[in-house]
Amino acid sequence: MNRALTDDREILRAAAALRVSETVPSTEAIARAAWSVLAEPGDGVAGALIRELGAVDALDLALGESSPTAIRAGGSARAHRAVAEGRARWRPRAQTRALIDALRGAAQVGARLVIPGDEVWPDSLDDLGEHAPPALWIRGDTRLLTATPRVAVVGARAATGYGEHVAAELAGDLAAGGATVVSGGAYGIDGVAHRAALGVGGPTVAFLAGGVDRAYPSGHQELFTRIAAHGAVVSELPCGAAPTKWRFLARNRLIAALGHATVVVEAGWRSGSLNTAGHAAALGRPLGAVPGPVTSAASAGCHRLLREYDARCVTSAAEVRELWGDDAPDTPASRPADSDRIRLLDALGARKAIDVAEICRRSGLDPDRVRALLGLLELEGMLTRSDAGWVRATNR
Amino acid sequence: MNRALTDDREILRAAAALRVSETVPSTEAIARAAWSVLAEPGDGVAGALIRELGAVDALDLALGESSPTAIRAGGSARAHRAVAEGRARWRPRAQTRALIDALRGAAQVGARLVIPGDEVWPDSLDDLGEHAPPALWIRGDTRLLTATPRVAVVGARAATGYGEHVAAELAGDLAAGGATVVSGGAYGIDGVAHRAALGVGGPTVAFLAGGVDRAYPSGHQELFTRIAAHGAVVSELPCGAAPTKWRFLARNRLIAALGHATVVVEAGWRSGSLNTAGHAAALGRPLGAVPGPVTSAASAGCHRLLREYDARCVTSAAEVRELWGDDAPDTPASRPADSDRIRLLDALGARKAIDVAEICRRSGLDPDRVRALLGLLELEGMLTRSDAGWVRATNR
Repeated sequence: MNRALTDDREILRAAAALRVSETVPSTEAIARAAWSVLAEPGDGVAGALIRELGAVDALDLALGESSPTAIRAGGSARAHRAVAEGRARWRPRAQTRALIDALRGAAQVGARLVIPGDEVWPDSLDDLGEHAPPALWIRGDTRLLTATPRVAVVGARAATGYGEHVAAELAGDLAAGGATVVSGGAYGIDGVAHRAALGVGGPTVAFLAGGVDRAYPSGHQELFTRIAAHGAVVSELPCGAAPTKWRFLARNRLIAALGHATVVVEAGWRSGSLNTAGHAAALGRPLGAVPGPVTSAASAGCHRLLREYDARCVTSAAEVRELWGDDAPDTPASRPADSDRIRLLDALGARKAIDVAEICRRSGLDPDRVRALLGLLELEGMLTRSDAGWVRATNR
Repeated sequence: MNRALTDDREILRAAAALRVSETVPSTEAIARAAWSVLAEPGDGVAGALIRELGAVDALDLALGESSPTAIRAGGSARAHRAVAEGRARWRPRAQTRALIDALRGAAQVGARLVIPGDEVWPDSLDDLGEHAPPALWIRGDTRLLTATPRVAVVGARAATGYGEHVAAELAGDLAAGGATVVSGGAYGIDGVAHRAALGVGGPTVAFLAGGVDRAYPSGHQELFTRIAAHGAVVSELPCGAAPTKWRFLARNRLIAALGHATVVVEAGWRSGSLNTAGHAAALGRPLGAVPGPVTSAASAGCHRLLREYDARCVTSAAEVRELWGDDAPDTPASRPADSDRIRLLDALGARKAIDVAEICRRSGLDPDRVRALLGLLELEGMLTRSDAGWVRATNR
């Protein structure tokens, strides 16, 4: 891969064939496709660079040799270090061939490339801030990404007959009522939710942890084909990418962010569904949990959500619909990504530097969130670091 | 019954035999026994009179012909009306014979009479304000009324195998840990909870809706005998009194008030257990609900408690114990009875009279609560009524 990637005619042709609109320049689309090849899902440095510079210039910086002007001007030592570390991650993947393969693989299965600025780009993913995906690869009806309302119905792979029964009832009823059922395509609750939506001729979206050309689990090959035909199979990973444990976890944030609400039907005490639920809660999305017998290990995670995450107890599709109310489809319940930035900046002074502990105390944000935002805001030139801690940037 | 009731030697002898201590004068004990014969459970006018005047003078007033000085001095037209209506209710029952029968009936089954001021009187019942019982009749270990902690475990008569299994596990574990299991002696969850406590040699208290000499339901005769032998069977109604629908509902407030926390194991959508739960919530007692399958009608009431009453989801005895924490056994979580009085008085002015609707608006209390407190506070002379509404009394 070289810096003239977006001038390559073969790439331009391949990318153009996958695009859903011409509102965004093809160079931007190609750069974002390249980023989905280069960066692992949720790479915050990549996300921050793209937000700050645009995908094309960010790619230029990522593939360049020296620190470009854009970063030299507003950036700090910390920003330089983050970019240097990013380059070390991204460069081993910077093969032009990998991008061409991803584009061709997508074309072969009829997948489309959707990016911010496209009419069908789901703005709700922007709530993920620097952890938003640079692009989505989609087989099926791209309009489902922005159809409203959308509800994430997720749960354990090791579901019981009870859980599968309830998942089918809820998802079928919700889809029949016009809601798009979003899930992860896994065995157990996810698969039942997708099938129930398809069964009533309703809309459903499956988020995969690998490329949309790969069926994982392989036993769901036939199901994914049906979803691609009547709904949408989506991934932030390019075609050819294998699912990994990290990618499953990262994928969960997309399910939570796309849904106007998330419902967990059955989940063990340490189920991956709790990860999705945690993302939903962190994003300020309404969270529901279906109770079950306290004697069933498959419901222990749901009861944990009721006790520890303040999830709402839901027992019917009507109660699930109450989660997002009448206004949610247009306006997400809250935008923590933005409000957290404001709270962090409010906490900082323009003269006296303060450390992370003090920022946490003043802002009420947790240390992980503060550290993530500090990096982003530093890249944006909103603040600078000294030996004593952080201060607001004054020269803007 | 006449006003010299507490001078009657037969009554004095019979009452003395039932008493657990001599800290309270026997005239007070006899007057309270008489009140438990005269007034239905929860009679707020009787309760307010007893609180204001003491049981002896209140009885004197109830059985007297004309308005006595105590009420003439501080009372209003409304107080006079309330007392007149009370007399109309109480007089048909004012038979000396009825009191003697109650005392003798108690002696025959070995029941004791416990009243406020006795060491074993449970202060937590005082949170019921004017709806506190004038006395309790007890077969068994009177010390269990004040043993700590106490947990109410209640639920549907039409319990499922699942509910009975969970009730047995929870109650057995709680009782084995030293908690006194309080319940209502009914078929279903209540009976299972009592039996599980007995099964581990733990303490349990059954609150009946009729006299403690009557087994209702009759199928639990043997169970009540065992509870009386190893725990306590308690009622606010005198021996010989039959259970009625009203008395069951009124009884529920005692279960809720005696428990440091209340747990509902299974309950239908309109189960009487929800009434107990409502009392617990109104009293500021922690409330737990055991979830179950959403497909089970016997769990619908529990899920309703989770959704509408902000009950805590509990799935184990350990989680039930978290409800009352470490401090609850000594100090109940809150005393709404007192704080409501303060809020209502805060809402009133000393000059301009305001109506119930305005009092509700200012105090944030509901109309039923306001009307109940107005009657009590008027009897206490804290406020007076005019045509335009209510004002604070200024001449105190």
